[in-house]
Amino acid sequence: MNLQLDALRHAYRNGDTTPRQLLLQLREKAAALNPDYHLFIHLLSVDELEPYLAALDGRDLDSLPLYGVPFAIKDNIDLAGIPTTAACPAFAYVPQQSATIVEQLLALGAIPLGKTNLDQFATGLNGSRSPYGACPNSVLSEYPSGGSSAGSSLAVALGLASFALGTDTAGSGRVPAALNNLVGLKASKGLISTAGVLPACRTLDCVTTFTATAREASQLLALTAKHDPRDEYSRGNPAWNDGSAFGAVRPFRFGVPRAQDLEFFGCNEGPQLFAAAIERLKALGGEPVELDLSPFLEAARLLYDGPWVAERYSVAGELMEQNPEAVLPVIRAVLAKAPAVTGVQTFRAQYRLQALKALCDEALENLDCVLTPTIGRPVTLVELAAEPVLRNSELGYYTNFMNLLDYAAVAVPTAFMSNGLPWGVTLFGRVFTDQYLLSVADALQRQQDSALPAPANAARNDRARLVVCGAHLQGLALNWQLTQRGGRLLETTFSSPDYRLHALAGGPPLRPGMVRVKDAGVAIAVEVWELPSSELGSFLTGIPAPLGLGKVQLADGRWESGFICEPYGLEGAVDISHLGGWRAYLASRG
Amino acid sequence: MNLQLDALRHAYRNGDTTPRQLLLQLREKAAALNPDYHLFIHLLSVDELEPYLAALDGRDLDSLPLYGVPFAIKDNIDLAGIPTTAACPAFAYVPQQSATIVEQLLALGAIPLGKTNLDQFATGLNGSRSPYGACPNSVLSEYPSGGSSAGSSLAVALGLASFALGTDTAGSGRVPAALNNLVGLKASKGLISTAGVLPACRTLDCVTTFTATAREASQLLALTAKHDPRDEYSRGNPAWNDGSAFGAVRPFRFGVPRAQDLEFFGCNEGPQLFAAAIERLKALGGEPVELDLSPFLEAARLLYDGPWVAERYSVAGELMEQNPEAVLPVIRAVLAKAPAVTGVQTFRAQYRLQALKALCDEALENLDCVLTPTIGRPVTLVELAAEPVLRNSELGYYTNFMNLLDYAAVAVPTAFMSNGLPWGVTLFGRVFTDQYLLSVADALQRQQDSALPAPANAARNDRARLVVCGAHLQGLALNWQLTQRGGRLLETTFSSPDYRLHALAGGPPLRPGMVRVKDAGVAIAVEVWELPSSELGSFLTGIPAPLGLGKVQLADGRWESGFICEPYGLEGAVDISHLGGWRAYLASRG
Repeated sequence: MNLQLDALRHAYRNGDTTPRQLLLQLREKAAALNPDYHLFIHLLSVDELEPYLAALDGRDLDSLPLYGVPFAIKDNIDLAGIPTTAACPAFAYVPQQSATIVEQLLALGAIPLGKTNLDQFATGLNGSRSPYGACPNSVLSEYPSGGSSAGSSLAVALGLASFALGTDTAGSGRVPAALNNLVGLKASKGLISTAGVLPACRTLDCVTTFTATAREASQLLALTAKHDPRDEYSRGNPAWNDGSAFGAVRPFRFGVPRAQDLEFFGCNEGPQLFAAAIERLKALGGEPVELDLSPFLEAARLLYDGPWVAERYSVAGELMEQNPEAVLPVIRAVLAKAPAVTGVQTFRAQYRLQALKALCDEALENLDCVLTPTIGRPVTLVELAAEPVLRNSELGYYTNFMNLLDYAAVAVPTAFMSNGLPWGVTLFGRVFTDQYLLSVADALQRQQDSALPAPANAARNDRARLVVCGAHLQGLALNWQLTQRGGRLLETTFSSPDYRLHALAGGPPLRPGMVRVKDAGVAIAVEVWELPSSELGSFLTGIPAPLGLGKVQLADGRWESGFICEPYGLEGAVDISHLGGWRAYLASRG
Repeated sequence: MNLQLDALRHAYRNGDTTPRQLLLQLREKAAALNPDYHLFIHLLSVDELEPYLAALDGRDLDSLPLYGVPFAIKDNIDLAGIPTTAACPAFAYVPQQSATIVEQLLALGAIPLGKTNLDQFATGLNGSRSPYGACPNSVLSEYPSGGSSAGSSLAVALGLASFALGTDTAGSGRVPAALNNLVGLKASKGLISTAGVLPACRTLDCVTTFTATAREASQLLALTAKHDPRDEYSRGNPAWNDGSAFGAVRPFRFGVPRAQDLEFFGCNEGPQLFAAAIERLKALGGEPVELDLSPFLEAARLLYDGPWVAERYSVAGELMEQNPEAVLPVIRAVLAKAPAVTGVQTFRAQYRLQALKALCDEALENLDCVLTPTIGRPVTLVELAAEPVLRNSELGYYTNFMNLLDYAAVAVPTAFMSNGLPWGVTLFGRVFTDQYLLSVADALQRQQDSALPAPANAARNDRARLVVCGAHLQGLALNWQLTQRGGRLLETTFSSPDYRLHALAGGPPLRPGMVRVKDAGVAIAVEVWELPSSELGSFLTGIPAPLGLGKVQLADGRWESGFICEPYGLEGAVDISHLGGWRAYLASRG
């Protein structure tokens, strides 16, 4: 059965199934699969499921956006009344309250199926570091599921849940997505509350989702991204990232790592799979821009070589001191150096990170997103067992830097390797560009699967476009108001042939009034600028009457934000439409 | 001679003096005062001054905003070719390059007079912790100057410089301002570059200015707030904080600490001086709002009790290990606990700080600024010598939390104590509200000194006001677009009687077109909302043609941003002006 959000809703509406019927079926299927896949640490019993199902009785499908949607929860995220183990039985506790994200999902009508297996304390990227058993890949069992959100990825990949919650500190929500043909969304830090989530690195942790499609990830993010007073690292979601405009991608610029920064660890299929992904983004209107990935990679190395292990130690260290055998040897090895980390070292590493972030931020400034492989080379379970630390760290080559640098990222499947193993890319970008990245990921998926529904609206980014027609044109008197705000000239073009241009009375400064008319309009020479959406408000505030900002139609039919003029302001104005534009008018004045 | 920026410019323009003449006079005066005040560690020699003076020869006054303006530099900020000592001779080095802020000022025409004394390694708030001598107060010599930017405050207070650069990690740019009748601006972290500044706590340090007036501080900030690639903690200044709209204050809400959070350490004049300052803000249109200061004060305690001493140690620790005698005993005592600070402790303190910041941010959300005393009780040099650590820490009661919490702050003098010692308050607020705070400080100063020039424009805040007249009114269909963005209803009022209101053709949603007319206008019922300026851009982006945002005049004559309508959109519209507003129109439709 298709468990994708829209399909499931359709099935419920049609009466094809009911939440109770479905969940009990999924529970049985999960129980049957678990001996092979070890994906659930705790599968909810029929009795444990019942209160969640009962809560839906008599509720209207339309009143609950996630009515009867089965989901799985990584076992470092609290579900009230069920043990949280973090894959360490000696550490287990039974929370009284669910994590905020779980409470949100329950309130929306979703039903938890169980708590999923993970690399112990979410420390790992492969899914084999658990006393509850190694999680094999959903497609090829000689490969691992990827981790640390191992069981959560399998729950979706094996058709047991519509979506699953993971966590991600260094790639734990993206590596398993790539290996299991799923979309893994590591949203900007703080958008999804981490209250009730056992920390790995408190300053870096994110809750993630695994879904079949980017569209579903977008819906889930829009439903749950909300400031949470329970989480001090919570951040409000700016409106430009609210998902309501999720949809079609416009021409965009995407960063591509330089050849010398790409690393496939000997996988000879990776280069061509990545090259194909670049071509697919180009086909969507993307312009590739070479990107020096070295400061990103240096930041990544700080994560395990630097003081951030002290964050992990602050969670598991006490147990490890008192009862070393309770912690897996490979995790002990990772944490062993933590007690010796000093405060001075910690601050110095934070300074270095900040220096690298400044470089990386600058590199992203004129890009809409960056494309990388999600993993360089898949490794088999045998290879992992032979070199557990080295092989694990290779898996994080393209993922480790993301949380440290405070970027948003989405892993999206794009291909299968010749042996059938899923392969994918990661799109990442500036903080709070989540929904924009998802719109690109969605377009990538629709490219391959024409059955996916086409979006209605245009994708929204953290940059706004602005049509200017007068003193804000490049090089003219007020252009500094754009450049001061980080504005960038996108194109020099014309309006649709529906406007009259006037030179307003008064000044200096001389000001144009561009007015849309029903008859006898002409095309006016304009420029389209791009500036941070957060800066557009102060720009607007500074515009004096009778001018304002509304929507202007361009020659190609698009409507973009741009200058408009109130009719009363035309008193005493001179119609200069015949000149075709403001520059020509200025020239005519000599 | 009046060295304030405008007065000095006037004097140069009039030919009353020249930069060479003035600087040599000031140099002589400084040399004469230095044996008593110990304010300069290095006063530039005539030869050292000459290149800066020569650089002005033949330059036009109007081409350099700070033409011939004398300034002093705290001796933890690099001036190329002159030793930087941080008040520790053993630590001294001669920089090849000036700090970015110094380079900026020199390029603007300012002239450095010398390097000023400070509490060693900028560790202290009193100005007596220096081997170059204790700095006495400029008014009452039995009191200290305050520190750590001791000499810089004296340079301005004693009439030796128009302004001076300080630094501020815990109050070092504000405490000396309060004690010497000056404005001390601790701008938002990252606005003024700290490249070339010896760190105290790298993550907290700010460069500050001492000036006689808030207006000058505003001018200096507007001239220098700029992203600096040399400083990884540098941040671009949002346009709403650019100072170009510096001026009149509107009705505003200011936080006032609860009675139990106010601490005057036995000073019986403090309470009434602070009460008087509250009254003065009320007279400016401010509405006081009680504020629980306890999370702010808890954050303050983290600074010296927590791991941030490890930041100081990372600068001075090596010298202290190798040559303990080179470091003052009181500084050694402060730094002594640093080597034992662990990484785990550091992260845990950062978590606690983040938790407190979340509380403090929430408290500030609906305030325009907060008013506190700058210091609770001035202490004498004798008291300081008796209990150097305790008395120093008392001085930071109202200042220590600011940098940790990432707020902007300005210390402004408001009174003199009965013994003649200056007394003042601090205005603080959200990051990047610097220019707004300065506009309030300026209004406070103009209240007392009618000779100060009145500002031309309205003060700009990080909040934007928006006039709505249709579906965005409270409780109507699109109001969520405002509340989702953190919008707050400010007032329910009317437009000026110059508008016609139309119900546009089409819909749903039904949409109004409010159009300013020359004749036969009426007043339309509107609401004024406030929302973060950074959110206004995405709101605008979502407005469909023919509507837009321009300037709307209110019944009291003010112009505010609000909805306008393009004339072509009125085709097929119904004039509903006689109903007086959108709610009445909706009611009329039944």
